[in-house]
Amino acid sequence: MTEIIATYLLHEEKNPKKKAEEIALGLTVGSWTNLPELEKDQLRKHKGRVVSVEDWHSEKPSVIRIAYPTVNFSNDLPAILTTVFGKLSLDGKIKLLDLVFGQEIKMQFPGPRFGIEGIREKVGVQGRPLLMSIFKGVLGKDLAFLAEQLKQQALGGVDLVKDDEILFENELTPFEKRITEGKKVLQAVYEETGHRTLYAVNLTGRTSQLKDKARRAAELGADLLLFNVFSYGLDVLQELREDDGIGLPLMAHPAVSGALTSSSQYGLSHSLLLGKLLRYAGADLSLFPSPYGTVALDKPLALSIADELTKEDTFKTAFPVPSAGIHPGLVPLLIRDFGVNSIINAGGGVHGHPDGAKGGGTAFRQAIDTKLKGDSLVEGAKVYPELKKALELWGNAEVTV
Amino acid sequence: MTEIIATYLLHEEKNPKKKAEEIALGLTVGSWTNLPELEKDQLRKHKGRVVSVEDWHSEKPSVIRIAYPTVNFSNDLPAILTTVFGKLSLDGKIKLLDLVFGQEIKMQFPGPRFGIEGIREKVGVQGRPLLMSIFKGVLGKDLAFLAEQLKQQALGGVDLVKDDEILFENELTPFEKRITEGKKVLQAVYEETGHRTLYAVNLTGRTSQLKDKARRAAELGADLLLFNVFSYGLDVLQELREDDGIGLPLMAHPAVSGALTSSSQYGLSHSLLLGKLLRYAGADLSLFPSPYGTVALDKPLALSIADELTKEDTFKTAFPVPSAGIHPGLVPLLIRDFGVNSIINAGGGVHGHPDGAKGGGTAFRQAIDTKLKGDSLVEGAKVYPELKKALELWGNAEVTV
Repeated sequence: MTEIIATYLLHEEKNPKKKAEEIALGLTVGSWTNLPELEKDQLRKHKGRVVSVEDWHSEKPSVIRIAYPTVNFSNDLPAILTTVFGKLSLDGKIKLLDLVFGQEIKMQFPGPRFGIEGIREKVGVQGRPLLMSIFKGVLGKDLAFLAEQLKQQALGGVDLVKDDEILFENELTPFEKRITEGKKVLQAVYEETGHRTLYAVNLTGRTSQLKDKARRAAELGADLLLFNVFSYGLDVLQELREDDGIGLPLMAHPAVSGALTSSSQYGLSHSLLLGKLLRYAGADLSLFPSPYGTVALDKPLALSIADELTKEDTFKTAFPVPSAGIHPGLVPLLIRDFGVNSIINAGGGVHGHPDGAKGGGTAFRQAIDTKLKGDSLVEGAKVYPELKKALELWGNAEVTV
Repeated sequence: MTEIIATYLLHEEKNPKKKAEEIALGLTVGSWTNLPELEKDQLRKHKGRVVSVEDWHSEKPSVIRIAYPTVNFSNDLPAILTTVFGKLSLDGKIKLLDLVFGQEIKMQFPGPRFGIEGIREKVGVQGRPLLMSIFKGVLGKDLAFLAEQLKQQALGGVDLVKDDEILFENELTPFEKRITEGKKVLQAVYEETGHRTLYAVNLTGRTSQLKDKARRAAELGADLLLFNVFSYGLDVLQELREDDGIGLPLMAHPAVSGALTSSSQYGLSHSLLLGKLLRYAGADLSLFPSPYGTVALDKPLALSIADELTKEDTFKTAFPVPSAGIHPGLVPLLIRDFGVNSIINAGGGVHGHPDGAKGGGTAFRQAIDTKLKGDSLVEGAKVYPELKKALELWGNAEVTV
């Protein structure tokens, strides 16, 4: 019998054992002890079971684990979430920490189409973290503005540029034009410098039109799709992943996810939502707040996301993209915490460089090279003027942390 | 210039005024004061503005309101949510309390297709709250079991019966069979008793297949669709509403919504998510925890949902369905709190009646009739044996509250 085992954190629950039993029955067969034997035989394969009930550091919160037979639901995330955290999400101080999928149902999910290795092949970069930057201040601007900003970022040697997630379909910079103009710019930079930069265009609009729009993007030669998955639904992401007519890497943006993950008492854990479920559903890259910036996530939480994206599993690994507040002085910390198989992603830390986005990207690449050579950034700043300027402006975490 | 005005609750924000300014710029044009005048002219229509910054009862939490020009996003909820609570949902202790849509963008949303009046016409009931009951313990059971349970509920005089939200596509009771068998049962009861009961079938499966499945349900004569909207996405609900080939009333289930609403510091308010946004997107009925049961919602929060569903607005009103822990003894309270234009919804309070579901439904109808005649339930119990048994079993809130 295949199961999905859900782990919950309960706050202020006086009798977690009783609660666990109520959940195991209430969310499956409804009742048990008073059923006739014949009915028990019939329902046994549908019955949930309590796997464990643990106290959490001997404090009030407790951790319970419930196994749900997969025969009870269809093989899709809406059915799974409705079962394991539907009504239950409304039932007191309860947080869904993890889901462990039995192998049989796990195989119904696609995982990333490209994953870390596939993305590395696309950008042609091995052995170092990739570098990504973000368009800034693009609302109300025209294609020429975007093209120039893209060019400057690419000239700085970034591997990926992503749309601002709040750039939607609009007359000045329509989706298809962004793809085709972006390609021209990036091809020109490639011919000039030999460096290949990929562009993640923001896939937006009504749900039922996303697939067609994504297929059109693929036809036009788009590199990647940025997707605000949590303002749509995990299953929508999965359907984009599964569509062979699209076949593009999917970059999941965490917009709106804070509403689901931020509370320690309610919602879903960061590692489950931004890590495991995104990976199972097919995201190739997952953005989340870094532990360093102003919009910061506690380091253990950020690391737990990265761990879920990259640990050994049935599926390809997905790139962790710790974001927000990143500047070149943080590169050693980022590599120490997230490893080489991560993406260093910066907005202000690229565009705000004294030499502009080109200088910003260059400074990041210099910081990465310096760190991977085993040198300190202070050493690097002696040979790299852009890195020197960046450290002067934003500081150098390797000496302050 | 049309705007959407978002109201946020900020906890532990030392300088809410500064924070508000940062949000208004950061989520629109990015920066302002240092821009050249020419660029300001170009971007003015895209710039967010701080509408108000208020202290909340002179305590630490403060309420801020930010206006976002609608020119910045496309006319869809994913774009709106990504703008007003995308990155911001990750940015500290912040809760989205409300969104006020300018009339121009509001008109892009459909609202309920039927609404309270349309549903009343379908069931042929005016002047009293509707009565709904829920299938219980149906996992692993066959069609004959469901048919019998449906019959007993209908014989009790309930107006609506809804699927268990955790009943998905399965071999024993497939979606289409539930519709066709359900119709037969309910037609037979109608011919026997003259009472018309409608059945809300659970629309489940992969996102892109929902519309076809819903159209097929309509062809087969389904009465209503139950939908776990929060395990899919609000825009998916809206697309079901907008499809004239479906044209069925939509009953929104709150499964998973607790992950978004339960925290007082994070997420979205109950009134916005389960009230306003469901109504705008097109739900005809919205279920939410009643203030009375074990899975209870604070009464002001439950009332705030009902208020958003029923208050004067551009759209049709939607039925509030306060659910969980409802028994006949609560009918006077329900009518006092939620009025006649609400739905009284019970599971255990129908099925657990000493005379079974038929007796349970009957007791509810008797309680409703008694209350609307202006009598106390104690009076009613003198003439109605089913009501008497219900009050003996579950108590009578009118004397204890």
